[in-house]
Parts: sequence; C-alpha cells; structure tokens
Amino acid sequence: MKGLYLVTDRDLCGGRTLDDVVLRAVRGGASCVQLREKNLSTRAFVEEALRIKRLLETYRVPLIINDRLDVALAAGAHGVHIGQDDMPYEAARRIMGPEAIIGLSVETWDDVERAETLDCDYLGVSPVFETPTKTDTKGSWGLDGLAKIRACSHHVLVAIGGINLANAGDVITSGADAVAVVSAVCAAPNPERASRELCSRISSIRDNGHE
Amino acid sequence: MKGLYLVTDRDLCGGRTLDDVVLRAVRGGASCVQLREKNLSTRAFVEEALRIKRLLETYRVPLIINDRLDVALAAGAHGVHIGQDDMPYEAARRIMGPEAIIGLSVETWDDVERAETLDCDYLGVSPVFETPTKTDTKGSWGLDGLAKIRACSHHVLVAIGGINLANAGDVITSGADAVAVVSAVCAAPNPERASRELCSRISSIRDNGHE
Repeated sequence: MKGLYLVTDRDLCGGRTLDDVVLRAVRGGASCVQLREKNLSTRAFVEEALRIKRLLETYRVPLIINDRLDVALAAGAHGVHIGQDDMPYEAARRIMGPEAIIGLSVETWDDVERAETLDCDYLGVSPVFETPTKTDTKGSWGLDGLAKIRACSHHVLVAIGGINLANAGDVITSGADAVAVVSAVCAAPNPERASRELCSRISSIRDNGHE
Repeated sequence: MKGLYLVTDRDLCGGRTLDDVVLRAVRGGASCVQLREKNLSTRAFVEEALRIKRLLETYRVPLIINDRLDVALAAGAHGVHIGQDDMPYEAARRIMGPEAIIGLSVETWDDVERAETLDCDYLGVSPVFETPTKTDTKGSWGLDGLAKIRACSHHVLVAIGGINLANAGDVITSGADAVAVVSAVCAAPNPERASRELCSRISSIRDNGHE
C-alpha cells in the first residue's frame, strides 16, 4: 500500500457517476480504491462493487470495501477497511481469510497500541487533519501524531483526512506510506489530473525527500 | 420452520431492552428469532447478535440475521433472511454454506416463481396484510395470495405482515407453515403472554383445523 489511495464518496462526485470518477482516478495513478457506501441497499452495493472491480482489473488496482464484509465476499473484492465501530479485527480476519487485505482505522493511541498485536495489512491514520467529509472522529492526529505513530508502529500507514495537494508532501515526510483522499479527487473538477498531481507530489517527496 | 417466528424491532420495545423482549418471546414459545437492525453500527450489531445467540441457546431457538451476512458470520448465527434488495440468493448461499438457514422474502409472483429453482429454507411471504412496520412493499398478498403461493410452491412458507392473534388462525388455514410477527410481540404489554397466545392459536388450528 503506497502512493495514492482513493476512498469514494458518491455525494461529492457532482453530476458524474462514481464509476467515471473512479476510472479517472486510477488513470491518474491511484493505486487502491476503497468503496464507501452508507446508504445503498446491500444488493445495489454488491452490484456497484462488481462493476468497479471489473473496471479496476484492467489497471490491476485492488478493490477494498469499507465496513461490509458481506459485500466484499459477494463481489470478490481484495479486502475490507474496518473502523473501530465496524467488525472486530479478529472476526474480520477469520471471515475474510489470510489472503485478504484488511485495513484498520486508528483514531486513538489505544487503537495504535492494540493494532501492534494484529496482522492487519495497514493502518488508516484517521484523521490526519480535520475534514468535513467525516465528522464522527475523536480529534485529528496532525503531522506530529502521524510521525509518532510512524516511530511506534510496524504497520504500513495510510494517512487520511483533509489531505490535498498542498499538504500531501508533508504527510509523506511525516511517515505515511500512502495518502488516502476523498474530496481532493472525488470533488475535483478533473479527477484524473488531481490524482496525477497528487501521485507526482507523493513520488517526488518519497524518492528525493523534497519536491 | 413452524409455529411462531419473531422478527425484532427495537423501536417497538418501549422501555424494555430488546434482549428482554426476545427472552420473553421465546419463553412464550417463539421457535425462531430474526434480528433486524437498520441503524446499528456493524460492531454493535455483532455484539447484539452474540448476546441474543447466547440467550437463545438455552431454548434451542435458532438465530437468523436480517440482510447482514457479515454479522451472521461474525456471530455464528444459524442463518440469514434476505429480501429482494439484499444479497442475491446464490451469493448468500455460497457465502453462508450449505448448512445455513436462508430465508427469502417474496413480494411478487416473479419472486415466487424464481424461488422455485432455489434451495432456500423458507419463503417469507411479505406482506400478507398491510403493516405500518414495513412500508416499502409492493402491495399485500392477502389470504388468497398466500393460498395461491401454497398451491404453487414447494417451499416452507413463513407469512409476515400485519399478523396478530385475530388473524393468525386464518393465516395458518391459508397455508402458512409459520407466522412471523413484529409488533404483535415486540409492542405487546406482555410479550411472553402474547407469544403464548399466538403459539396456542397456531397449534390449535394446525392440529385440529379449527380453534
């Protein structure tokens, strides 16, 4: 898990379909897509997941489903992302099997410490910055918090929350392996260009330590 | 699947806990419990399902989860009930395995005909009568519709929707193997007595063809 990780939000896509925004994001370089749906019926969510999975296969980009293991299993997604109010990690691993990608959000130090004992595939450091797209959080980590997690945790870190082109470089410098964005791509006038610019910023910082 | 089948609705339980109402319903004779939750987090739903499952084990009453296969798998429930907007049946069977109880709601003749080719464990004939607890339906079957399904379908039939002590006998006479209720037990002043009276009515009709 590195580079740009897209988390979807259909309400931010404007007049465009979610499929179209996802396609443009991966063309622009997003290397992972997480489908997040809180209001679809199970059937509609499964159908969407199957559709997006086919779309991503061409680009060899893995599909992660937020929260809903049932949808992930039905659609044959590569994994799930779970928060602290979702399925307990151990149950998720048992149900999804050893090969599945399972990401886990950490919102507190307790979450980070407990995650050290787990074989999850990455931690979602959430939120790094305050963000209007997710308001049920326990305060933001900030770049300092992210750097402290980097120093303490052996896990791959995916930073999420309020990340955009202006601060993505700092997020990588502070220890994130990947940058997850919602509105910076879903709400962008040109999602492909927004992804490309973010990917370029991330690689230039990662490769050179500066821009 | 026969006798009385409880479908839960926490909003109808008044000041009582859902656990308390379920316990009283099974003491009164309910032989199956379906947990239906549309607003709980996944974690809270799993915790509730584990708690209710332990409670039901004493009574050897199976636990069915509405819609959410992920919750059913995490809690080790006996099965799932799926509607036409939920997981497609074939996916549900593949994920849950051959031993799981899988019930399928039928709301139209197309649903009934298609279900004849499926190895589901019962059909939820929904709704038999109009009901305020579920308004997203395609019209009610009525006793005539239920009798026609009985004549055409090889499946076990669980009738649901607007069933109470006054009409439960007619529902059994019209061909239902089991009667599912929500408000007739969850909202009853005495859920145990309400269940006992319903069970008694169902068995007297089933055993004698009259009351």
